[in-house]
Amino acid sequence: MRLNVFTDYCLRTLIYVGLHQGGVVTRSEIATAYDISDNHLMKVVNFLSRQGFIETMRGKGGGMKLARSPEQINIGALVRVSEEDSPMVECFDREHNSCNIASVCRLKHILNESLQALYGVLDRYTLADLIANPVELGGVFAIRLHPVSQDK
Amino acid sequence: MRLNVFTDYCLRTLIYVGLHQGGVVTRSEIATAYDISDNHLMKVVNFLSRQGFIETMRGKGGGMKLARSPEQINIGALVRVSEEDSPMVECFDREHNSCNIASVCRLKHILNESLQALYGVLDRYTLADLIANPVELGGVFAIRLHPVSQDK
Repeated sequence: MRLNVFTDYCLRTLIYVGLHQGGVVTRSEIATAYDISDNHLMKVVNFLSRQGFIETMRGKGGGMKLARSPEQINIGALVRVSEEDSPMVECFDREHNSCNIASVCRLKHILNESLQALYGVLDRYTLADLIANPVELGGVFAIRLHPVSQDK
Repeated sequence: MRLNVFTDYCLRTLIYVGLHQGGVVTRSEIATAYDISDNHLMKVVNFLSRQGFIETMRGKGGGMKLARSPEQINIGALVRVSEEDSPMVECFDREHNSCNIASVCRLKHILNESLQALYGVLDRYTLADLIANPVELGGVFAIRLHPVSQDK
């Protein structure tokens, strides 16, 4: 049961941006902080912006910030929309289904019930819960972003 | 949130074998019934046998049958073991994790809670629930396995 790397990166991006409220964060800063590909992040940032989770500003001094307060960014809502194109099993996507028992299969109802239980848990959390330990998280990022000053 | 195709095929195989209790089913029959690759099925059948869900018999008249009653084949137990090598996110697999905030990240606990809720639902069902409509399922398989006789 895999979450898309894309969703994982969406969540990591929101954690980072959420930790830096009051300021503006650049994509390359996030890429360095997590040591992940800037190319992947471009799609992630575009998606988060399009979905109204972050605001992006172009030009010098540009970057991104949260478009809403962390309490208003629901984890279930984010994961649902980010996983929209990844059906749990092929029959969840009628258009691309090739399983011939789909019309009479009881498994799909059981799998759907289990997926809704998963989302039901995620719906109870917001970004505020993910950044409730800013000192710890900030400490890890500082090591990545300022390796020299950490050695002093 | 994708289930592995491997798990999907395990479940389809058990549905087919479960519908044919009292008899022995061959791998090529299952491949034809679902129009899926026999090569994929070989791994699936080996896995199901190794895990004690089915018994396989070699030689002429050989094939497979359930190793337990459908009521004793729990869907949650099957999916857990079949998805064992597919961590929901990379930090669920300490050995291969590369996310540097894993040690202080609260997301992994939330994701794990959601995954346990998903398995909690699957734990409530057995193979007996998946084959509780044998006439409907049998009808679909008959069309695939005996296309000519269906036209009469």
